[in-house]
Amino acid sequence: MPASPFPEIDYGRSLLLTDLYQLNMLEAYLAAGTTGTAVFEFFVRRLPARRGFLLAAGLEQVVGFLTEARVDAAELDWLGRSGRFTGRLLDYLAGFRFTGDLDALPEGTPVFADEPLVRVTAPILEAQLVETRLINFLQYQTLVATKAARMVLSAPGKGLVDFGLRRAHSGEAGLLAARAAWLAGFAGTASVPAEQAFGIPLVGTMAHSFVQAFDSEAEAFLAFARARPDQTVFLLDTYDTERAARTVTEIAPRLAAEGIAVRGVRLDSGDLGAHARKVRRILDDAGLTETKIVASGGLDEAELAALTRAGAPIDLFGIGTSLVTSEDLPALDCAYKLKAYAGRARRKRSEGKAYWPGPTQVHRRRDAEGRPIGDLLARADEPAPAGPGWDAPLLRPVLRAGRPVAPLPSLAKARAHAAEQLARLPEPLTRLAEAPPYEVAVTDGLRALAAEVDGFGRQ
Amino acid sequence: MPASPFPEIDYGRSLLLTDLYQLNMLEAYLAAGTTGTAVFEFFVRRLPARRGFLLAAGLEQVVGFLTEARVDAAELDWLGRSGRFTGRLLDYLAGFRFTGDLDALPEGTPVFADEPLVRVTAPILEAQLVETRLINFLQYQTLVATKAARMVLSAPGKGLVDFGLRRAHSGEAGLLAARAAWLAGFAGTASVPAEQAFGIPLVGTMAHSFVQAFDSEAEAFLAFARARPDQTVFLLDTYDTERAARTVTEIAPRLAAEGIAVRGVRLDSGDLGAHARKVRRILDDAGLTETKIVASGGLDEAELAALTRAGAPIDLFGIGTSLVTSEDLPALDCAYKLKAYAGRARRKRSEGKAYWPGPTQVHRRRDAEGRPIGDLLARADEPAPAGPGWDAPLLRPVLRAGRPVAPLPSLAKARAHAAEQLARLPEPLTRLAEAPPYEVAVTDGLRALAAEVDGFGRQ
Repeated sequence: MPASPFPEIDYGRSLLLTDLYQLNMLEAYLAAGTTGTAVFEFFVRRLPARRGFLLAAGLEQVVGFLTEARVDAAELDWLGRSGRFTGRLLDYLAGFRFTGDLDALPEGTPVFADEPLVRVTAPILEAQLVETRLINFLQYQTLVATKAARMVLSAPGKGLVDFGLRRAHSGEAGLLAARAAWLAGFAGTASVPAEQAFGIPLVGTMAHSFVQAFDSEAEAFLAFARARPDQTVFLLDTYDTERAARTVTEIAPRLAAEGIAVRGVRLDSGDLGAHARKVRRILDDAGLTETKIVASGGLDEAELAALTRAGAPIDLFGIGTSLVTSEDLPALDCAYKLKAYAGRARRKRSEGKAYWPGPTQVHRRRDAEGRPIGDLLARADEPAPAGPGWDAPLLRPVLRAGRPVAPLPSLAKARAHAAEQLARLPEPLTRLAEAPPYEVAVTDGLRALAAEVDGFGRQ
Repeated sequence: MPASPFPEIDYGRSLLLTDLYQLNMLEAYLAAGTTGTAVFEFFVRRLPARRGFLLAAGLEQVVGFLTEARVDAAELDWLGRSGRFTGRLLDYLAGFRFTGDLDALPEGTPVFADEPLVRVTAPILEAQLVETRLINFLQYQTLVATKAARMVLSAPGKGLVDFGLRRAHSGEAGLLAARAAWLAGFAGTASVPAEQAFGIPLVGTMAHSFVQAFDSEAEAFLAFARARPDQTVFLLDTYDTERAARTVTEIAPRLAAEGIAVRGVRLDSGDLGAHARKVRRILDDAGLTETKIVASGGLDEAELAALTRAGAPIDLFGIGTSLVTSEDLPALDCAYKLKAYAGRARRKRSEGKAYWPGPTQVHRRRDAEGRPIGDLLARADEPAPAGPGWDAPLLRPVLRAGRPVAPLPSLAKARAHAAEQLARLPEPLTRLAEAPPYEVAVTDGLRALAAEVDGFGRQ
């Protein structure tokens, strides 16, 4: 029996969490002496109409990976035994350290099509080898942070909590989702290690199985309240939601006498708005006006918006599947592409997949209220646009020669940045469907470079 | 900077990869002395019309988790410092070993709505605590194995390879996806650690960045071929697919003189069928009739079916995003539910979420050609149906008192089992859309139990 799903792999640091073709290409780069400096950028090619913006996330994990990525002795041994690689490659991997530069958008920054989230400038062997894991980290957290931001914007004044670990595509995905959702404004998570790893507040209620394990709901609720007096959120829908609410009102005086308040109740099925109204009235009639109502069960941003608009008396929403799988958009059309090699700008011209060549920078202009009114994608070496309303260039230095320029902002700071940015988004971009495209203009300098590169490529 | 995304967590074995409510419920179970034996089953509530069947997967990881799950000293210390839990719970967690029974469908078995993939019979504290990770493992691999099976059935005679690590929802997800796809009949994966962890054959080509790093495609192809003479698959669409194919024919004689054959070419954009036909002709005209054509780029099962039906001369498909995210269905409506406690059957009656109570067993009947013609969901204690055509009961003992009854089948054996089962599926169930529902009948004994349990629950 396996001890763990992948006993030999340390996910966080292993360079081998990559595609075989990266190792094949490294062999060929080494053999050919093609070891010059490359510039790669990670960007999203296009947004579907149901995403007016993306919220950049995942940078902290990328930085952790770049600064710590290694191939350990057991992995080297395995690579050697596979007989697939040269001693030259094994030696290279054994001594691997990322020595390049990283420039990036701060986490929690809205980002649009064609705009780089990160730029890697490094010897091509390094920049190539880290591709797979870098995309893996950035795509998923950006997907979930974006989904979470849509939910936060759809339910103003409500608390949202991540309940998704079980439905996430792995344990690692569940933890990264908790992080991305918190970054985007969620109030907490049910995933225990997310507090350990990221300091995210934990929220927990009870399961139907708990209620079922007792001979009656009243017994179940009393047992739970006495064991967890600070976390009294009773699940109401195991048998009949309103009957359970009345049971809560019946036991509340007994609990009050023991010094225990009923903090909340949870609804998990049926018409959540209708149940919430009935339950609110039952609780209020019994004087339990401070008892909160939590709702869960297959919710997405459209349902959050509808319940919020309708004034459903729900205080907190628990959200799982739709959040952690980004269910309506489980992947982005994104890429990590070579923009320059050995000082010369590059791009490919594959049908439907051409992109802007050379290192790029993003400039964002705001109106008097601080709302973004349009971006400008520029060559990284062009002067920043002058005049009022322009943000400082969005990509900022993060690593130089493999070392941090400064500590990254804390997750709490990144979360505050995200909240500020989301509050300033123009309303049309926040629409759940049919969001109009945001203007990303391109400088004349970048257009001229593209024409020049294409001429070169047609040799 | 963090050393790894979750420096303190061992995914495979940590019991803390769970929801807070599990720990809250354990506190209450311990305090109330509610520590009897529980039976939980994991099942899917319903299948959408675009899934005629599911392919069960993930059991090996569940067994690894159940037999090895622990809370380590650092985790205990963290739990203690949180101040959230009693010494009683911490002591329980410190001594945790799974001592229960596990019954399960073999991996690679088709499964339908309401049918348990696994049944856990254990002290309720144990059965409850493992819920989150058990769902996490079973849902994702079953999703991906099912998606992969649809692809395998859609492209008879073609080789399919997993290219999805970068777009998977984490590194762990990428590796589990490689495993699930291989189980379902894929021919290999690009993910390096999937060979290390699971023995899955690796496949790798080259990226556009490789071609772009050289001054011409010919130089890039020659450099690659000389460094990787056994893995000569050239990527054609960086600039112009057919022009690149002609470049391949021009350098092939030079490579042949060096003893290097051109094993394949890869198409990654545009109309793959049209490009494949043109490229096939260019290669054949140059005598490169043994050179294979690999196609990739956003493929799903519908496109595989269309290309295969149209006779596109493509030998191997590389499939990423749609596979590893199960893009059209990124989550199952699945649950791990209490079926019995302390010898008494249970179910909940939540709106739209009722299920069959008590431990259940699945019986499958086949026609003379071995095709399944209907299942029977029965109480586990009912006699198996007699007569010709019935399989042995589908759920089989895996763990007894926490120990393996026998080693699990190897992944290769599970893969062979899946291939045999998929070959026998009735054609309507394999349709990509509008698959008719497969009949899962329910015994009178199970119906009677449900009526009895509902009467009990209404006390």
